[in-house]
Parts: sequence; C-alpha cells; structure tokens
Amino acid sequence: MSSYEYEIQTMLWKNMMDKVLIQTLNIGIKDKKNDAVLFKLPSSSKISIVATKNKYAAAPVLINKINIKYSPKYLFVNSGNANAGTGTQGMKNAIKCAKILSKKVKCKSNEILLFSTGIIGKQLPIKIIEKNIVSTNYDYKSSWKDASKAIMTTDKYNKIISQKIIVSGKRVSVHAICKGAGMIEPNMATMLSFAAIDLNISRKNLKLLLNKVVDKTFNRISVDGDMSTNDSVALIATGGNTHIKTDSLKNMREIECQLEKIFTQLSEMIVMDGEGATKLITINVLKSRSEATAKKISYAIANSNLFKTAMHGSDANWGRIIAKLGSVDGVNFTPSKVKLFINGILLFENETNAKIVNHKKLESSMKNKKIKIDLFLNNGSQSYTIKTSDLSKQYVHLNSAYPS
Amino acid sequence: MSSYEYEIQTMLWKNMMDKVLIQTLNIGIKDKKNDAVLFKLPSSSKISIVATKNKYAAAPVLINKINIKYSPKYLFVNSGNANAGTGTQGMKNAIKCAKILSKKVKCKSNEILLFSTGIIGKQLPIKIIEKNIVSTNYDYKSSWKDASKAIMTTDKYNKIISQKIIVSGKRVSVHAICKGAGMIEPNMATMLSFAAIDLNISRKNLKLLLNKVVDKTFNRISVDGDMSTNDSVALIATGGNTHIKTDSLKNMREIECQLEKIFTQLSEMIVMDGEGATKLITINVLKSRSEATAKKISYAIANSNLFKTAMHGSDANWGRIIAKLGSVDGVNFTPSKVKLFINGILLFENETNAKIVNHKKLESSMKNKKIKIDLFLNNGSQSYTIKTSDLSKQYVHLNSAYPS
Repeated sequence: MSSYEYEIQTMLWKNMMDKVLIQTLNIGIKDKKNDAVLFKLPSSSKISIVATKNKYAAAPVLINKINIKYSPKYLFVNSGNANAGTGTQGMKNAIKCAKILSKKVKCKSNEILLFSTGIIGKQLPIKIIEKNIVSTNYDYKSSWKDASKAIMTTDKYNKIISQKIIVSGKRVSVHAICKGAGMIEPNMATMLSFAAIDLNISRKNLKLLLNKVVDKTFNRISVDGDMSTNDSVALIATGGNTHIKTDSLKNMREIECQLEKIFTQLSEMIVMDGEGATKLITINVLKSRSEATAKKISYAIANSNLFKTAMHGSDANWGRIIAKLGSVDGVNFTPSKVKLFINGILLFENETNAKIVNHKKLESSMKNKKIKIDLFLNNGSQSYTIKTSDLSKQYVHLNSAYPS
Repeated sequence: MSSYEYEIQTMLWKNMMDKVLIQTLNIGIKDKKNDAVLFKLPSSSKISIVATKNKYAAAPVLINKINIKYSPKYLFVNSGNANAGTGTQGMKNAIKCAKILSKKVKCKSNEILLFSTGIIGKQLPIKIIEKNIVSTNYDYKSSWKDASKAIMTTDKYNKIISQKIIVSGKRVSVHAICKGAGMIEPNMATMLSFAAIDLNISRKNLKLLLNKVVDKTFNRISVDGDMSTNDSVALIATGGNTHIKTDSLKNMREIECQLEKIFTQLSEMIVMDGEGATKLITINVLKSRSEATAKKISYAIANSNLFKTAMHGSDANWGRIIAKLGSVDGVNFTPSKVKLFINGILLFENETNAKIVNHKKLESSMKNKKIKIDLFLNNGSQSYTIKTSDLSKQYVHLNSAYPS
C-alpha cells in the first residue's frame, strides 16, 4: 500500500469514526412499524439541545437537562408516546428505559439523552419496551431517512435535508431531520429535530450556534405561540473536518447562515404539514420601534382565527389584520403611520383602505399557496418575521374528532 | 280631581318624563330594514360609557370621548357600517351625521353620542343618511325590542332583557339590549349594549357601577381576547325613582349585583350566538396567587384552538388544557399542585391523569351544551372566570367565505 493509498484509507476510516451511527427499531409502542431511533455519537462529538420551556415538560426533557452536562454518547428517541403528563411513574419509566438501553449498548445510563413524542398522559409500556430493546440486534445500518420516518407521529410525510454546505471553501456534510405538524397538535404533540454537522466545534460555540439558528427558524413558526411538552432540537457537531477552524467568527457566521437556511426549510415543512393547512403565510412586521413589539404583533396576527380563516378563503381582508393590530396590548406604534401590504400590494394607509390599482392581480395572488403580509409600523428600524398556516374545516375535523 | 288623583297623575306624568324615548328608523344603509335607533334621554338622566381600547377605534368612539363630557341628550346608533378604518373622511362623516341630526331634533351636535356597527373600511353613505334622517317623523313610539332588532348585524336573534329589580325593597325598571356574535367577527364587528335603569344616580357612581359590572360580564367573554374597533356599552340612569337613595353603599351593592345578573345573561347570549358556536364553556381558574395570573391562564385556554375543537368534539381532553397551562409565559404556579375538573369530575392531579370512577358520567356530561372547566392552581386565593364558545367547521365556513 502506497502512502497515498494509506492516507485515503485513514481518511475513510476517520470518516466512519466521525459519523453518527443510526439504528431504527420497533420497541412495541406502534404496531409493526419502527417507533424508535438510537443515534450513536462519534467519540469526538459535541452536542447541544434547545428544549421546551413548558412547565409540564415531559420526563425525558427533564432528564436531558441533567444528562446534557455529562458527555452524551447516545440519543434515544421514541414516537407514539410522549411520556408527558405521566407524573412520577413517567419519570421512573424514562430512567428505567435509559438503564435498559445502557446495559445493552454498554455505557452509563446518564450518557443517554432521551426524546419522546406521541400521546400525552399514557405510561410507556416499559416491559414490552425492555423486551424489544434487549432483543434488537444493533448493527447501525439505518440511514437518516430511516430515522426521519421512525420519529413521525401524525406527520403526513417524513422531513429530511441532507446536503453539503461550504465552510471556508470546503464541503461539509449536514444531515437534519424533524417531525411535527405545525405545533397544531400538542396531543400527538411536539416538534423534534435532530441534526449533525461534520465539524469540530467547541461546546460553547455549538450552543451559541444552535440558539441563534433555532431562534430564527423553529421558534418563528406558530399556530398557538405555544411550545409543547416535548419540543426539542438537538445539534451534533461530529468532530470531523478538523482542518476547518470553527473558532473564527467568519467561519461561524458562514455555518450559522447555512444552517439557518436548512432549518428554515425544515420549519416550513412543519407548517405546511400542519393539520388541514393549505397555505404558508409569512408575516413580516417591519420598521418597528423594538423587536419585542414586532414579535408581539406578528404572533397576535398569526394566532387570530379571523385572520387565518380569511387567508383560507383567499380573502385580502385588511380589516381583520388592522383590527387585530389595534387590539394588541402594550405595544408602541402610531396608527396613522401604519402601512399594510399583502403579496406586495398596498391595502391600507392613512388609517383607511388604499386605492387598489389592480384588483385582479390582488385576487389572483391571494390564491397562491404562499402568502406574504408586510406590516410597516414606520416608527423604528426593528422587525420580526413568523410563519403560520391558515385555518380550515379540515383542522377542526381532525382536532375535534381526535380521541383523548 | 282629589289630591290623591292629582298625585297619581303627577307620578304618571313624571314616569313618562323619566323614560328613555326610542325611535327606530331606516337611514338607507340596509335595504328596507331599520338600521338606526335614536334614544332620547330624560332631562334628568345621567349616562356612562365603556368603550373599546382598540388603537383603531372607530370615528364615533372617538367623538363620544369628547361629547360624553357635555350632557348628552341623544344617542344615535347605526348598524350595517362600522365607520371604522375610514380615516379622516370617516371622522368628517360622523361629525356631519351628528350635525344633521342635531338640526332635526333641535339640540347641539355635541349633545349627541354616536355608535356604529357593521362593515369596516367603507365610508357612510352620508347623503342618503341625511335624506333619511331629515324625512323621518320622530314620534318616539318605538320599543326597546324594536331597538334591539335595529342594531343587529350578523346576530341570529335580537338580545333583550326588560325586568324589574328590587332596590331598597322597591321595584325598579331595567331595560337592556345588546348585539354581537361572540366578538367572533370584527368585520361585522362589535359588541354594543344599551341599558337604562330608572334611578337617580350621580355621574360618578354611575361610572363606578358600569365599570364594575362590565368588568365582570361583557369583559369576561372572549374568543380572541380582543376588543373590536367599535365595542361600546352605555348605561343610562334615567333620574326616576328619586325616593330611592343611591348614595348608600348598600343600595349600590344591590344595584350592582342585579345589573351583573342581567349583563351576564346578555353576554352569554352573545357567546351562544357566536358563529358556529354549539357550546357555552365557562372557564374558572381558581385558588391562584393573583387575579392577573388567573386571568392570563383563563384567556390562554379560552383562545386555544386545540381546546375549542376538543370541546366541539365533546372530548374531555385534559392533555390540551394542561399543555396550554404549561406554556403560558410569566405566570406563577406549582405544576404539582394543579387539579383540573371538567363538569365537576376530577381529571388531572399530581401531574398526571386522575383515576376516573365513572367514565360514562363524564362522557355523557361532555355532550351538554354548557361545559364547566375548574382549574385549581392551589397556591393562593384569587380567581378569574371567563366564558367562551367552541370552534366548529361552521365557524371556519362563515369566516372564510365572508366577503371583505
């Protein structure tokens, strides 16, 4: 073997070592379908998590808050049962689950992070789970795609992005998957996302990176403005591509920018997979005195049923948006300065309707699947953007028929 | 005529003078239906108003803020057009409307209070209105019932309560009407209410009384937690029954208590008339550390679509209520202390589901038209109650099909 061949071999071997290994399995919550994923982290990896602030956070969320402080070696995800609203027994079951798994894969139980999604208020069938975890043969031949399918609950399709991004002129692999149907259903609840980036990033920088990117992506989609009991996003830096420096501000900005694009696409998939959703609506509140004001107003509009039903009916109803804007408590703006555009067409200024030149253009644009609301407060330079879906009869149908 | 007969005659005459006189009319906004009411106040009356805090308050709301400081002699209400989102021209039209009317009924134009309800963003047809106001013969033979019909917009039925209440052992007439369909439609917007009580109350006490009663009734029904651009409640003390003292705390408490009952009934009529509403849901947040916390939580639940659709499906889904509770920002409670009852049946305690003894009883009670949610935070002594409706396909149908 020439030294060149040897180098290639080493790189390939090292590449394998840098990869997240994946095992999907059935632990007996769902019938005959995979309902769990085990991620095995590379030894040099770092991990960061953003999790729900819900005061009834599920047992696994609480456990992760402790275990993230150790060096996690495995992530274990189950779908079909949220282990939320399950009290003390739920916590015992989660700990038991980690113990069973730790024996099987030979690590400490606090080196495992847990994630659950599914029905609230039901105890995990821990005996069945134990049997299935023990009997599974872990060869780690599953793919990110397999994982994206195993974490689905009411999702109509699996959500995955695998691509190379360019950092400091070099190609870097990113794998990202998520599940969730527009936060629309805290019962089969929860938005979960797992992503891995083939870079060597310090724990501190990884945390900063994840917080920044989540704040601009997964935290900017909303139906209720809620976080469910189980929401979690985990980002793994595999430790690969050590030749790319990640302590440079320039490189970190590049990573942030490209990860934001990937997470934006994933979060839009979640909105569009929302129950009964037919439209992806982007609400921009612009030229606000503060970001907090812009945020409050954008959420108020996004969560207004009158707005959401108007959008569903492809109706450019500025009255509902303006009446909502006027009713938001504790925000600072001057009513007479406000201008409202829908799909780029000015509809409201000087506290009344604008003269619309091309009604046909407006009408036809309202039938688009993507709708853009631009609300200019014109008393500052801050802005906020969120994405939401419309409200349909199908939403009511699915959510009023769902068994508790 | 004996002195006794003379006294009777005087009392009858005085009674007439103490009454609010009513004229319903058509001013040309609606086709062939009455779309306006003129209330003529007794000379000794006092009036108080609670109005919307919406920053896009309609022109008449802004005018009333000034005119209430004079001694209003007339209230003029129109339905079919809100005169909101109408800018400077809308204000000019409202002023013009008051001027036309003041000439006709011979008063100053600032002695008239104006109320509008109906579509947002359309100018009043002021020339047609002028013609109709001028040509109407004002004989004041209309009834409170006629008035309750003339102020309707999308209401399915007129809303009126006329009854005698007992104050200091004496019978006192109260007439109260309102319109509104659950705040559900800020486009044909607005909750309006007009009430008259045959008492002699000081302006200061009347204001206190109205604020207290509205806060416990009309301000405790919600779909969006909004106030529309036109919401107003007006209470007239006619100046009658001068023998009943209203400066006594005891009598004022009696009046408050009984007026609260009347306004509660009216506000429940509004909720039940909400578009597509099939249930009247009372949400009590109890034993809270502060009223503000209880209020915030009760609104969050009332405005949750997941909660509202579950109720529509007669589904005692505690998971949706608890997940919502957990996600309310900036409130103080201890998750482990919380107990949740629906229709008097304990469903949730110790952070998990309670053992339900009688599932059939629960199931059948969920099919009731009236649903009661009792959420005990158990960390204080304050409480808050609001009423809301469920969310149905009919709501989506009506609101996504409505022309803007």
